[in-house]
Amino acid sequence: MRGKFIVFEGVEGCGKTTQLQRTQSWLEASGWLQFLQARGVVRTIVTTREPGGTELGTGLRQLLLIPGEEPIQDRAELLLYAADRAQHVEGYLIPHLETGDLILCDRYTDSTVTYQGYGRGLDLALIHQLNQIATRGLESDLTLWLHLDVALGLERAAQRGKRDRLEQADLSFHERVQKGFIELAKCHPERIVAIDARGSVAEVALQIQTVLTERLTTWYGPKD
Amino acid sequence: MRGKFIVFEGVEGCGKTTQLQRTQSWLEASGWLQFLQARGVVRTIVTTREPGGTELGTGLRQLLLIPGEEPIQDRAELLLYAADRAQHVEGYLIPHLETGDLILCDRYTDSTVTYQGYGRGLDLALIHQLNQIATRGLESDLTLWLHLDVALGLERAAQRGKRDRLEQADLSFHERVQKGFIELAKCHPERIVAIDARGSVAEVALQIQTVLTERLTTWYGPKD
Repeated sequence: MRGKFIVFEGVEGCGKTTQLQRTQSWLEASGWLQFLQARGVVRTIVTTREPGGTELGTGLRQLLLIPGEEPIQDRAELLLYAADRAQHVEGYLIPHLETGDLILCDRYTDSTVTYQGYGRGLDLALIHQLNQIATRGLESDLTLWLHLDVALGLERAAQRGKRDRLEQADLSFHERVQKGFIELAKCHPERIVAIDARGSVAEVALQIQTVLTERLTTWYGPKD
Repeated sequence: MRGKFIVFEGVEGCGKTTQLQRTQSWLEASGWLQFLQARGVVRTIVTTREPGGTELGTGLRQLLLIPGEEPIQDRAELLLYAADRAQHVEGYLIPHLETGDLILCDRYTDSTVTYQGYGRGLDLALIHQLNQIATRGLESDLTLWLHLDVALGLERAAQRGKRDRLEQADLSFHERVQKGFIELAKCHPERIVAIDARGSVAEVALQIQTVLTERLTTWYGPKD
């Protein structure tokens, strides 16, 4: 029994975190979880996030998101994200996959490629090299990319009053991040599925449920 | 004008930190610093250390040396050391070298190779890859390796009452670290100079002064 690793990605304000929680509730309420447990192919559902999914990660997240007096160098920042990821992969993701859990994760390697690579212009080859070192090749089984216009996403993020260091960056930064997601989705059509995130929470959730139903059926056979 | 980068290395209790301070005092008291400043080839002397030579590094040092509830994964630890090093190289070492400073540094890449590679048995190829990423190829101009029998070093470290996580490890760990230093010194005879660290503080300091006088003369010409 090996679990499944499902990642939620997208620009600020796309609704990742909300939809991740909705997905967990739906998997339980729809009977999918019970069905998979009864078939003995899934143990339970766990949710996590990057950066910050581990005890070490929580400390690193502080170091990364709170502005200090001394600017964090680009290479150091990439290595910190990689350290957080290595801890998460070795200490959380792989153990949970090995015990047959279905993991819902808020951001993973694609965020590093898009934010640090496309957004900040850091060396993409270096980013891929560090992702490889940190993950030892662990990719998501499915990445749900919540695709939303950047300006609309930033407006939503501003409305919920949450503005951390990343959200203060300018519009063109986020446009470059968006371009990164578009190109990644083109390169990995099997792994990355685009979800139209313009609608209401319920409308977006329905699309995700449709995609997941299809995938779960492919992986485990039809429910009932 | 480009400064020089001098590193002090060795097993626990070898006297690195004491000798680093003595070296700074001697460079000032012997007239070498004034000579090099008058010649316009050195601006000043600065001292630093790894891990922990920067503001970020101080935070990381806490994360690395204080035991948490959740064990830090090997790969995550290597990446944290690499992040600290990248910050130190980009934010401290290169700027100081560019302004013509003579840098005395407590530990650098050889410590990662010996402690994590030889001592802990982590992948040496991965360590070299991360050292390369973190340093962008910056090597010391001279590494003073204070060579001391491991048991004697641990005894000295115990006497000064300092026992952190590394010093609690067993003797065979430190023997493997020692083997690493011996092999590195063989591979890099130009960069790494062995200092016999068995004698008194004054005796060891005299050896270091002899080596440094020779190197400074090679680099800058004879004093007076």
